[in-house]
Amino acid sequence: MIRTLVKDALAAAAPIDALLLQGWVRTRRDAKGFSFIELNDGSGLKGIQIIAPATLPNYATEIARAHTGAALEVRGRLVASQGQGQKWEVVADAITVVGEADATYPLQKKGHTLEFLREIAHLRPRSNLFGAVFRVRSRLAYAIHQFFQQKGFVYVQTPIITASDCEGAGELFRVTTLDPVRPPLAAEGGADFQQDFFGRKAYLTVSGQLEAEIFACALSNVYTFGPTFRAENSNTSRHAAEFWMIEPEMAFCDLRGNMDLAEEFVKHLVRDAREHCAADLEFFGRLVDKELSARLDFVLERPFQRCPYTEAIEILGRAGRSWEHPVQWGENLQSEHERYLAEEHFKCPVTVFDYPRQLKPFYMRVNDDGRTVRAMDLLVPGIGEIIGGSQREERLAVLRENMAQHQLSEKDYWWYLDLRRYGTVPHAGFGLGFERLLMFVTGVGNIRDVIPFARTPGSAEF
Amino acid sequence: MIRTLVKDALAAAAPIDALLLQGWVRTRRDAKGFSFIELNDGSGLKGIQIIAPATLPNYATEIARAHTGAALEVRGRLVASQGQGQKWEVVADAITVVGEADATYPLQKKGHTLEFLREIAHLRPRSNLFGAVFRVRSRLAYAIHQFFQQKGFVYVQTPIITASDCEGAGELFRVTTLDPVRPPLAAEGGADFQQDFFGRKAYLTVSGQLEAEIFACALSNVYTFGPTFRAENSNTSRHAAEFWMIEPEMAFCDLRGNMDLAEEFVKHLVRDAREHCAADLEFFGRLVDKELSARLDFVLERPFQRCPYTEAIEILGRAGRSWEHPVQWGENLQSEHERYLAEEHFKCPVTVFDYPRQLKPFYMRVNDDGRTVRAMDLLVPGIGEIIGGSQREERLAVLRENMAQHQLSEKDYWWYLDLRRYGTVPHAGFGLGFERLLMFVTGVGNIRDVIPFARTPGSAEF
Repeated sequence: MIRTLVKDALAAAAPIDALLLQGWVRTRRDAKGFSFIELNDGSGLKGIQIIAPATLPNYATEIARAHTGAALEVRGRLVASQGQGQKWEVVADAITVVGEADATYPLQKKGHTLEFLREIAHLRPRSNLFGAVFRVRSRLAYAIHQFFQQKGFVYVQTPIITASDCEGAGELFRVTTLDPVRPPLAAEGGADFQQDFFGRKAYLTVSGQLEAEIFACALSNVYTFGPTFRAENSNTSRHAAEFWMIEPEMAFCDLRGNMDLAEEFVKHLVRDAREHCAADLEFFGRLVDKELSARLDFVLERPFQRCPYTEAIEILGRAGRSWEHPVQWGENLQSEHERYLAEEHFKCPVTVFDYPRQLKPFYMRVNDDGRTVRAMDLLVPGIGEIIGGSQREERLAVLRENMAQHQLSEKDYWWYLDLRRYGTVPHAGFGLGFERLLMFVTGVGNIRDVIPFARTPGSAEF
Repeated sequence: MIRTLVKDALAAAAPIDALLLQGWVRTRRDAKGFSFIELNDGSGLKGIQIIAPATLPNYATEIARAHTGAALEVRGRLVASQGQGQKWEVVADAITVVGEADATYPLQKKGHTLEFLREIAHLRPRSNLFGAVFRVRSRLAYAIHQFFQQKGFVYVQTPIITASDCEGAGELFRVTTLDPVRPPLAAEGGADFQQDFFGRKAYLTVSGQLEAEIFACALSNVYTFGPTFRAENSNTSRHAAEFWMIEPEMAFCDLRGNMDLAEEFVKHLVRDAREHCAADLEFFGRLVDKELSARLDFVLERPFQRCPYTEAIEILGRAGRSWEHPVQWGENLQSEHERYLAEEHFKCPVTVFDYPRQLKPFYMRVNDDGRTVRAMDLLVPGIGEIIGGSQREERLAVLRENMAQHQLSEKDYWWYLDLRRYGTVPHAGFGLGFERLLMFVTGVGNIRDVIPFARTPGSAEF
């Protein structure tokens, strides 16, 4: 007999005479003549109620001893439930205890702290919260691919190991096979990286953007979706050393086209989660973040506004607030500013664009004013910036000037310059941190809780 | 006006009065009174023919000087082509040269070697061959997600940085932020990895399987699709240091269910490529590998066979061949053996299973005979093994015994053992190397040519 998933059994249109369910005991409650077992197989938030009659031959020896966490195989009939809160239940004809879980099972009782659950990250996907988080993560990953593929974008798997540092950022993990204590030494002192695996110093990527630009300048519309890394030694609820990024890049596209895509993309993902993860989102709204539903509505229903950075600075200056971080042209917007703009001033998601040149990396297109660049940040309520992007500098001479200003070597970026030498085109793209999106869509407040096994300073367990 | 992609223009059902095309010049041929330009935007293999009349105001100054590689914006009319080999062409009303490409453009002439094209990996996606390869790569990545998502599998992004080594394999890249020459030293000698970023020695993952098992034991059916790494110093056409793997894992599943899924999966991907990448596959069949189409048919049309390892050894022993590698029970099957089985003996794809225990990793389920394990390899013509998998050892006592035999420390795998302590279930899964699949489906013979930017010993350019 073929297995029926619990979610499919719960969605049945009619009773089923014979079905096979496989899953794990969430709770067991014994009554006179039978036991109620809530069985969950991870296919959805809700488990299904199993009625295990005491007349089953292994009732006393096995079933009535099956603890929370035990694995069961249940054969029985799907019938309309007598009880409240569920449409269907299963009257078991046979139950096999496939794998026991004794009283030491750490997920026995409810109400564990998130901190404790992080320590048992190998078991936490069996809880309601983490089952829901990881189902939503999977669904949204798929929705991202669907969104771009249906638009004809080509998925590019840019390299994880790289010898270049996209933003001259610095906080890099080194990848090596050299001896950690006695590496071969170079004549000029220091380790001889020519003898390292790749014949040079190599790092984990911080962004696939530059490589995505290569592909956009060949295939027109492309996107990346892969892991990226930061060796930042900051233990906050919003930083992880390893996280996934989505980076679309479009040839023959300017900043306006880029904003259009970013806004459509965010709306699409929120709508998709609402449609495909309704039960999980309802759970988050009830137990994780009461404001969640209103915040998602905010993004779905309001028109997105657009506001130049210079105007945003003026708005913030007129706000009559005392800001923790001063508001001044030439300074970055902080979270308090971003949230004020979206939540209080515009009262809708807002894309701020044309940022001061000195704040931004070398590859952003310089505006005619010479002091701003075609950068954009999409701000949403609750978290502020969710997407950052830009039109790229496609003019060879200006790019070289920018690189000189940023003290970058043309030798290191010969191939990036070639894109401007041969058939250069206006192009633009943005980056979305997948975990940040997940925190927005689920209301979960710590990035460690939307990653299967988070990597943070001092922690790489599992 | 909104851009029309070349592939959509070529698929038009009727003439179009006004359209905008954007792309790059592949060839230009001047005739009396006009020029023919083949414009390609990467949306498909075929470019579209543009007729540029000499009456255009910038004809002599710009258009008739636009070289191969130049970026153009073309406004015009889509009309039935007078010429042969194409249904539609575009008569230009206006052409803007967006970005020139001078005579130094490296992709000018045809017939470059693959070796040369690897050196200009930033330009090779603009060639017919690599445009096709990377479109197929994108499509098959999507087909993989579709296949699993439609079956209700949950996508799990397992960690890239890890402190554990899935198979005790050894060939690992180390990830570090310690000083390469003067790391802090531990009291007992050697570098003090407690002071490294993660507080311990960390590596790039070789497989997400063990973490996928965690999720299968919570959510039932899961899959991974992410980069994996091997620091093997071997410069062959089949090895890369960084490659992508797909690893499904199913709870309540035995080796037979695993074989069923693997066979269905391979057929699905070949069929999907045939359906969605027809023009690109036709190109590969014509210019890369004349046997390609027959080989894909072989997989699609033949029933898959299954054969125990022990029987395979007997078949090979009876084959009357002189083998380069001796055929003997207890030895690995080599490529010559695998190909003989699929191509000559069974004349269909074949899954070999129940391999000698001593050949396989600690986590495979031991058969009742005590000398074989529930391993399987799916063999296809042309390349041999394309999928490897197993049913996992779910019995705590046997797993501990296996670990002791493999000299693995239970302390390092406490969480893996916990899966067998709490609600253990039969489970199984397999791994498919994405690049190996791409080589099979495209006929491309070198793994470096199916990866956007390959990482191999001594090479991490771009």
